[in-house]
Amino acid sequence: MKIARFSRGEIIAFGIVDEDELVVLKGDPMFAGYDPTGERVALHDVRLLVPVIPRSKIVGVANAAFLTAHEKADGEPGEPVLFLKPNTAVVGPGDPIVLPAGVNDVRAEGVLGIVIGKIAKNVPVEQAADVILGYTVGIDVTAHELQERDGQPARAKGFDSFCPLGPVIDTEFDAAAAVIRGQVNGEDVQSDDIALMRHSIAELVSFVSGVFTMLPGDVILTGASGRSRAIADGDTVLVEIPGIGTLSNPVRRAR
Amino acid sequence: MKIARFSRGEIIAFGIVDEDELVVLKGDPMFAGYDPTGERVALHDVRLLVPVIPRSKIVGVANAAFLTAHEKADGEPGEPVLFLKPNTAVVGPGDPIVLPAGVNDVRAEGVLGIVIGKIAKNVPVEQAADVILGYTVGIDVTAHELQERDGQPARAKGFDSFCPLGPVIDTEFDAAAAVIRGQVNGEDVQSDDIALMRHSIAELVSFVSGVFTMLPGDVILTGASGRSRAIADGDTVLVEIPGIGTLSNPVRRAR
Repeated sequence: MKIARFSRGEIIAFGIVDEDELVVLKGDPMFAGYDPTGERVALHDVRLLVPVIPRSKIVGVANAAFLTAHEKADGEPGEPVLFLKPNTAVVGPGDPIVLPAGVNDVRAEGVLGIVIGKIAKNVPVEQAADVILGYTVGIDVTAHELQERDGQPARAKGFDSFCPLGPVIDTEFDAAAAVIRGQVNGEDVQSDDIALMRHSIAELVSFVSGVFTMLPGDVILTGASGRSRAIADGDTVLVEIPGIGTLSNPVRRAR
Repeated sequence: MKIARFSRGEIIAFGIVDEDELVVLKGDPMFAGYDPTGERVALHDVRLLVPVIPRSKIVGVANAAFLTAHEKADGEPGEPVLFLKPNTAVVGPGDPIVLPAGVNDVRAEGVLGIVIGKIAKNVPVEQAADVILGYTVGIDVTAHELQERDGQPARAKGFDSFCPLGPVIDTEFDAAAAVIRGQVNGEDVQSDDIALMRHSIAELVSFVSGVFTMLPGDVILTGASGRSRAIADGDTVLVEIPGIGTLSNPVRRAR
């Protein structure tokens, strides 16, 4: 099932994708279930919004480093290194990624977003699936220069608009087999295979929930391979995870 | 005016401190003004709770480094270096600081908490006071060993209970003259003078709001001098900012 959140005129609502239409829901399925209003709207008639509004935080994995199959088979993965993005960094499909005035060398990487659906603390690896609502596409935007200068990513990754998410939450997606494809202005810049990620999705959910209480709507970004390049005013960043969908955001320079 | 949040039996409410009583309010003064219910309760009859629930984030200053008066007069302050704590790290007066299993060398530092009262973005220094609701006492808890290992503080500073705040929000406090006094088990361990902080409160609010949109209830922790020592199961951490009050939290080891 693919959950979307959309606006149409003055209405903002959630819906379930059914081919080229949305089955409109009475409330947020994370809290209110899948109760339909009886209305249907055409997907091309709506504006898709960010499908999840984190109540608390986005937790990213800094050392997800995608391994070769050989490294993956051999290596001791060690502990994930985490970073935080505040919920104020989140924007939706088509919203601009705004480059702060005077900030150069901003990078954008496609990531898989794990959407947490329940209050989760100290979740064992084998129960991780129980607290996951579904998966979305994310773009982890980083002001690389500021991260180097600060020696930590809170500012560099936390600016408003530095966490696009969408276009939908897929509740049935087989994330273990996910592939993340990134383009800038139509040119391929990223192709990552989740199966080669240093830690599994269940391991990440377990580890992260051992540190923070995760609230419904919080998101874990699985990380990317690190092969990114600087984006500039006028660029378009596009990330596709086949099976979930495509998230595309224009880049604008703040005036 | 000192804003408290309290529980008494099954009631949770906000109140204004009036000597040894609380004037009970109808709602959260941050959103609903100061409308009294007409009821008063004795302070010794209630349990004080954390006076603010951040909707989004706690932003800390990593390099607040308190200067000598001589350094303060001479130096170029440079930019603040920021870190984030999630709202799930917040606890109130008397709540335990829980040391995660297996984590050693946890430090606790007293800090001034700037409580943001309005949606704030790109606030000029001279308008910073307009977006501040008031001030509270904070304890910045850090798993020092994990911060060194991770090379960044998201995990080390973000565990549940690693951000005690309280006991009240003082809306009239002269923060520029604040002194932060810290004790562990009754022994003095910290004495910091906000006037010698690298950046002024207005400068911090302006800088932070230039990075993140600050939401009502978000808190900026001004930082401490860094003279901290490890805390252990059974300790009591006490931080006093004369004029605001005293925040005291026991330390417990997670089982």
